[in-house]
Amino acid sequence: MRAVKLYGARDVRVEDVPMPTIREHGDAIIKLAAACVCGSDLWAYRGIDPITEPITVGHEYCGVVTEVGPTVTNVKVGDFVVGSFFASDGTCEICRSGYYSGCLDRRGMGGENCQAEYLRVPLADGTLVATPTTPSDDLIPHLLAASDVLGTGWFAAKAAEVGPGKTVAVIGDGAVGLLAVLAAKELGAERIIAMSRHEPRQKLAIEFGATDIVTERGDAGVARIKELTDGLGVHSALEAVGTQESMMQAIRSTRRGGHVGYVGVSHDVNLPGLELFFSHVHLHGGPAPVRAYLPDLIERIMTRQIEPGKVFDLTLPFDQAADAYAAMDNRSAIKAYLTF
Amino acid sequence: MRAVKLYGARDVRVEDVPMPTIREHGDAIIKLAAACVCGSDLWAYRGIDPITEPITVGHEYCGVVTEVGPTVTNVKVGDFVVGSFFASDGTCEICRSGYYSGCLDRRGMGGENCQAEYLRVPLADGTLVATPTTPSDDLIPHLLAASDVLGTGWFAAKAAEVGPGKTVAVIGDGAVGLLAVLAAKELGAERIIAMSRHEPRQKLAIEFGATDIVTERGDAGVARIKELTDGLGVHSALEAVGTQESMMQAIRSTRRGGHVGYVGVSHDVNLPGLELFFSHVHLHGGPAPVRAYLPDLIERIMTRQIEPGKVFDLTLPFDQAADAYAAMDNRSAIKAYLTF
Repeated sequence: MRAVKLYGARDVRVEDVPMPTIREHGDAIIKLAAACVCGSDLWAYRGIDPITEPITVGHEYCGVVTEVGPTVTNVKVGDFVVGSFFASDGTCEICRSGYYSGCLDRRGMGGENCQAEYLRVPLADGTLVATPTTPSDDLIPHLLAASDVLGTGWFAAKAAEVGPGKTVAVIGDGAVGLLAVLAAKELGAERIIAMSRHEPRQKLAIEFGATDIVTERGDAGVARIKELTDGLGVHSALEAVGTQESMMQAIRSTRRGGHVGYVGVSHDVNLPGLELFFSHVHLHGGPAPVRAYLPDLIERIMTRQIEPGKVFDLTLPFDQAADAYAAMDNRSAIKAYLTF
Repeated sequence: MRAVKLYGARDVRVEDVPMPTIREHGDAIIKLAAACVCGSDLWAYRGIDPITEPITVGHEYCGVVTEVGPTVTNVKVGDFVVGSFFASDGTCEICRSGYYSGCLDRRGMGGENCQAEYLRVPLADGTLVATPTTPSDDLIPHLLAASDVLGTGWFAAKAAEVGPGKTVAVIGDGAVGLLAVLAAKELGAERIIAMSRHEPRQKLAIEFGATDIVTERGDAGVARIKELTDGLGVHSALEAVGTQESMMQAIRSTRRGGHVGYVGVSHDVNLPGLELFFSHVHLHGGPAPVRAYLPDLIERIMTRQIEPGKVFDLTLPFDQAADAYAAMDNRSAIKAYLTF
């Protein structure tokens, strides 16, 4: 089968690799319906996370189960399923508390081949959620988005306690940030301020429910948010970048007693304790427990309440995966979708 | 009247100063019932917070109202009142959300003379809470403790979502840490692990409700907490020190999805973003909104449900304030109480 491998910075190749097989009793094999590139794949692509040997990339997936291990009971061959970037057992105390991505037996799906035609999923019972019926083809992008970017944006909103009557700022206009806007809208936020200086992303933010666009960044961005919120700052800031600037912007944009939900994977971030102390904000985030939200998200997608797959603004044949990475790297695409 | 002034590192003097007067329409003047020294006063006493001219210290107070400004309606002359280290208007949007210590018009009481015979309290209507009846003398230490150390320990527990069934660790065995133990007990925690290597403090922690004592610190302390919690860590860590070591100990002692409530004023703390991200903890803290809890705390004290004043293990005449500071500095006293 074909799979993407990253050989070094900006060196993406599609090559033939062996089919995955059942290795543990709880595994399932999935024929993927499509593949896609994540913003966090770019850290390795850009050489910021160093590469010493060819690595698998990607961690988003949905498709049809073709084989299951002997202990798997929650999904069966023929089911259309969606999973998350951390496989989880669903039974440990941390999973039961809702933090599936903190599962005591979690397995990072980055080590499997998610940008490939077939995928092995460990801990299938705890990880995979089947759709109630086989989705029509036009729903596939939305379901694939649920696997990470939607689920992660959703967690940002949940972590920041978004709800009715709240004013929300979203820092980051990548796919996760844009879907954090959608999540805030779905969760009832009254006002949603999207921070973006890119017109196509602004448009999509507005389509997803943003009520205001702020183009300024850093201190100027914070000042603009304060202006829009009677000097107080927002109730909830949703951080979807992972840099020092974006984290401080999120903290400084939030009113005392408000909430910051952060989901951008931290790179060289150090939070100054004294400023955090006096900011009075709640801080919560990390790898999103997407599995917790999948049943709800799948239902919203299958009933066509939400269309998170709109973040895919570039579709390419799988063999052109290198072009997909390049387009996301130079920000000409928000998120690239790969068809087989 | 007499007041304490700090002239430099370890240079505490009691001197005669003018009586405070009503300066704003919303002020009240209080004849203080007693005075006390706070652990956070030691930062200046030890020269860690530099002193360039004689400063007032202390920020805890309770006593009888002797005079009120023309707009004050919530308290009257003769009332016994307790207030917090931040005066607050009680009417702004931040106060109404419960974050009184983040009041848009807040006034730090450190600038007034709280270690003195009489005290001016600005924003009296929003700041002071009267006891339902005049307290008997033996209740004064408990009410004075409510002004900061109890209210701050209470906030640590609230910020860390302490409740029935929860396992809690308390980092810091000063007055705030010990009263965080009491708060956790009152809020229904099932298990309360106090971290202390000082026998008198361990005893008081147990009296306040601690179920376990851990004497190890740093990485060894974290390992011990993990041992006591099936390898998971606690649901709630209450941080009451304010150093890098104590903050990291709190974060690392907490299970994924758990809560850290931090109230130790941060000194040279920098939180590593990536570790925080993958820790999956909730982080909340800052200057405690003590005013929010005062009605509840006063009721618990007046009905003799709790005795937070037990943290005062040294009582001295006011003129010996220098000895009170020295005893807290060398940790021979947990907290010093000064009588007039």
